[in-house]
Amino acid sequence: MTPFNPPLADLRFVMENLLDLDALASLPSFEGMDAGLLATVCEEAGKFAAGVLAPLNQPADIEGVHWSPAGVRTAKGFDLAYQRCIEAGWNNVAVPAALGGQGLPCVASSAITEMFMAANKAFSMCPGLTLGAIEALEACASEALKARYLPPMVSGRWSGTMNLTEPQAGSDVGAIRCRATPDGSGGYRLQGQKIFISWGEQDLTENIVHLVLARLPDSPPGAKGISLFLVPKFLVNEDGSLGERNDVRCVSVEHKLGIHASPTCVMAYGDEGGAFGHLVGQPNRGLEAMFVMMNQARLTVGIEALGLSERAYQQALDYARQRQQGGDLAGNRNVPIIRHPDVRRMLLRMRVQTEAMRALALVIAQAQDFAQQHPQPEVRAAHLGFVELMTPVFKGWATETSLEVTSLAVQVHGGMGFVEETGVSQHYRDARIGTIYEGTTAIQANDLIGRKILRDSAGHLDGLLADMRAVAADLAEHPCSLGLRLGTAVQALEQAARQLRERFATEPEQVLAVAVPFLMLFGQVAGGWQWGRMVLAARAGLERAGADRDFLRAKLLAGEFYAEHILTGAPGLAQTVLLQRCPSLDWSETLF
Amino acid sequence: MTPFNPPLADLRFVMENLLDLDALASLPSFEGMDAGLLATVCEEAGKFAAGVLAPLNQPADIEGVHWSPAGVRTAKGFDLAYQRCIEAGWNNVAVPAALGGQGLPCVASSAITEMFMAANKAFSMCPGLTLGAIEALEACASEALKARYLPPMVSGRWSGTMNLTEPQAGSDVGAIRCRATPDGSGGYRLQGQKIFISWGEQDLTENIVHLVLARLPDSPPGAKGISLFLVPKFLVNEDGSLGERNDVRCVSVEHKLGIHASPTCVMAYGDEGGAFGHLVGQPNRGLEAMFVMMNQARLTVGIEALGLSERAYQQALDYARQRQQGGDLAGNRNVPIIRHPDVRRMLLRMRVQTEAMRALALVIAQAQDFAQQHPQPEVRAAHLGFVELMTPVFKGWATETSLEVTSLAVQVHGGMGFVEETGVSQHYRDARIGTIYEGTTAIQANDLIGRKILRDSAGHLDGLLADMRAVAADLAEHPCSLGLRLGTAVQALEQAARQLRERFATEPEQVLAVAVPFLMLFGQVAGGWQWGRMVLAARAGLERAGADRDFLRAKLLAGEFYAEHILTGAPGLAQTVLLQRCPSLDWSETLF
Repeated sequence: MTPFNPPLADLRFVMENLLDLDALASLPSFEGMDAGLLATVCEEAGKFAAGVLAPLNQPADIEGVHWSPAGVRTAKGFDLAYQRCIEAGWNNVAVPAALGGQGLPCVASSAITEMFMAANKAFSMCPGLTLGAIEALEACASEALKARYLPPMVSGRWSGTMNLTEPQAGSDVGAIRCRATPDGSGGYRLQGQKIFISWGEQDLTENIVHLVLARLPDSPPGAKGISLFLVPKFLVNEDGSLGERNDVRCVSVEHKLGIHASPTCVMAYGDEGGAFGHLVGQPNRGLEAMFVMMNQARLTVGIEALGLSERAYQQALDYARQRQQGGDLAGNRNVPIIRHPDVRRMLLRMRVQTEAMRALALVIAQAQDFAQQHPQPEVRAAHLGFVELMTPVFKGWATETSLEVTSLAVQVHGGMGFVEETGVSQHYRDARIGTIYEGTTAIQANDLIGRKILRDSAGHLDGLLADMRAVAADLAEHPCSLGLRLGTAVQALEQAARQLRERFATEPEQVLAVAVPFLMLFGQVAGGWQWGRMVLAARAGLERAGADRDFLRAKLLAGEFYAEHILTGAPGLAQTVLLQRCPSLDWSETLF
Repeated sequence: MTPFNPPLADLRFVMENLLDLDALASLPSFEGMDAGLLATVCEEAGKFAAGVLAPLNQPADIEGVHWSPAGVRTAKGFDLAYQRCIEAGWNNVAVPAALGGQGLPCVASSAITEMFMAANKAFSMCPGLTLGAIEALEACASEALKARYLPPMVSGRWSGTMNLTEPQAGSDVGAIRCRATPDGSGGYRLQGQKIFISWGEQDLTENIVHLVLARLPDSPPGAKGISLFLVPKFLVNEDGSLGERNDVRCVSVEHKLGIHASPTCVMAYGDEGGAFGHLVGQPNRGLEAMFVMMNQARLTVGIEALGLSERAYQQALDYARQRQQGGDLAGNRNVPIIRHPDVRRMLLRMRVQTEAMRALALVIAQAQDFAQQHPQPEVRAAHLGFVELMTPVFKGWATETSLEVTSLAVQVHGGMGFVEETGVSQHYRDARIGTIYEGTTAIQANDLIGRKILRDSAGHLDGLLADMRAVAADLAEHPCSLGLRLGTAVQALEQAARQLRERFATEPEQVLAVAVPFLMLFGQVAGGWQWGRMVLAARAGLERAGADRDFLRAKLLAGEFYAEHILTGAPGLAQTVLLQRCPSLDWSETLF
């Protein structure tokens, strides 16, 4: 399989041109965090991703995980890779230094996560999930719990998981039945079954800290009666040493379409009387605590999609350069297939959408940094609003788009793409879960409309649209497509958003029926906005002496391609959203 | 897994309303072939597909095929199913009665193929490939060869395969190296390796008849030096009895993303001195003979995509009706997910695109029947022109669309869709080969532009566009979206086609770079054209006493959905095709 080539030049281009690194470095926590330091961090992370994680990706996919009643054995090489990962501290780059982490900004962790997911998504999910658990505990747990559990989780000696789903409770978390009963000594006994628990059991860490949603006795029904519990695999003594095995077990693992090396576990709590757990935060407020994890997890899944897209693109590009087949229009025989116009089209579709994801990921990450660290509350609020607005858009659009990008990578390989040996179909299989877990695309779209667009009293959307229009106007100074297409697309997005807002009160069902097309429209336009900014930066860069002209000219061309092949679809998506249905048809009729 | 439910009502609706069954029945070969008889044939085929083939689909996917040096053992149950298939004659429905087949029209075989592919694609490829080989032999082989080989192939006792691909010769068939040397007695000895040979070896039939492309000594280089050979697995004596094992062997099978139960073979010819073969047709004219198979095979692959789409839709629909999750806007808790607006949107996207494929498949099949059987040459020519124009459109568009449809089926299942046990991801995996084999989508698009649109001296495209416009005009008598959207979409298609024709001479590379978007535009508009005809038929049907009102009203609604969710994208695709690139950018620059 093609080695993974960390996209350092593209990461650096986005960081230096689309972010405000001076402002980032002026935040109290990030002093000295300049472009050079970020580049060094990315370079080192890239070496680890390419050298340690990427070579394990395909063998681990073939091997899968090994379940037995005693537990789960992960694929060959994962244990050593995990040890090297935590020794280098790659598992906690964005955890505050006060908690024992590296204290790097989200901007750095976004870049690192992209590369780790590109190199080996199944593996990288394990430390990724631990990060989410750390964040939830940091936000909601008592000081005593934090003191006992956070240090080994931050160091990576212990992992963390999130346990939401039950057979009858998937998208509808409120349907959870898992029970927690006070044990009289301040603790709880949990009983119930959880499914689809990623990395719910493994052999990489000394202990596993499960964050589990469950119901207390007499709790209200639905989502308002769910509490969060910390349930360790091994009980933890006051001094932090490990005690008895807790009453929680992985009773089977799923046989899945993709991410074969990530154990997806059925977890049984309390089969022998009750799994011991601590309450985290307030009773019946578990969902709020879980949403701390969830929002970051959604962004991380979007970054996974970016990583897989980049990896698939690289593999397709490599194949297209090496594979010789057919002649070109100039009469040359047996040319590398990259010379064929449609192969170039496919590679460009992959590339421009991947670059749009990367730019958006880093812009959102920077906003997270400002939202968390900026001294002024109104600046924090503005950035938080942007992050909250963009989280469902980025997660939904990037994961949906990664299905196309990884599919195109298969297509570029022709028949070889359908043969598992080539390794490219793994990305297609691995990507397929992205639109499902951490909230399906429809859940993202409902969140976007219901909680973001409709309740946007602070006008975050209007501010964003104004930014987008300004970029389109700046682009229009040159006679290229991107400015025009972006202007039209932003207008289409604005009109669609306005109409959805107006119609929701009277036609909520019809609005939700076009929520996903609206989300995709939003994502494509946001990608075009970032392409506009990249093209403006490339134009400016070309004026400077010593510029890498090939690199910057390629950005101009790629931006035009995005305009002509992606943004051209925006008005049509808006038409779908704005739909005017035939007045004589009654859509409440039974269609199925 | 959901049982397969033969779509008899939808097939009958298309046959009775979009086809001219009276004209079909007036063709000499198809006397008495009225709607009732066609419906009976479909019903019986549907029973076989649902009862015998469909239950084997998932177990066979899990089991795969078993290779050993002695040969390939197919999945459990395939042998019995195959015997039942040929006993009932389902393998040769469209083979002329004079050759021992059932002599049914292509319209019937299209419907039957759809159902067989829906039920079990991996299995149904075997008789499907045999049909292609029969057709090529019938068209090109000597009477002596036909007499010896056709009867057992038509009866199904022997199968047929097509052997084109070699490691260095995929899309570029002209790069074939396999050699054939005259053996002095009128036969040939073949040496070389073929890859990706579907059903190249199996244990279902007594013999396998390989049609193999190879080069004669001193043949011209490239595509004009390729000849077609018949190479049986077992030599065949003059009396038709089987002789010695021929020097052709399956040396391995591929481990693939999908169609696990279809053996994809690496075939070695002549490792022990030379595989005996007969020349089929003229020396160096092998590609022409192979294209007889290829054109039908391309249509069949499109029908495969239709079948998989239908099957995936049924499974998603079934799950959406049974799975309860979340509440609806009316305040009901735990409703079947089919009540959620986005689940309905996904199901409708699947359904309307699947129905568009079916309508187009049957319209093309009817044109094949007229092209082959009509007494008047000019009528035959007109229909042949339509079939030739639509073959790449249908194959490319249906297979690409089936990737989306099968992906949506996974999505409707949520997390359960990612678990292989559910069986729905099999359709997603099985569909993925459709855009690759029998010519990738790019190959179809190049054929569409290079050989169909540019050389359309008879004006087949103009005639088709006029038909489409007429449907849009008829629809416009009612104030619904479909007429408007179709009118706009046809205009977009026409403009795009005109511009591609004009620009090809000066900018061939740029034209070929948008060939696939053009093909997709063409397919979507053609699907809209058929939806227009279905809606007109449904409106007319609703006027009649005793009509199935629910069935017909659903067609009106589905047609509107196609207009608002699919045809809305047509103008944007046309914009991509019509692209006006930035004059200051040089696209010949190295972008990669």
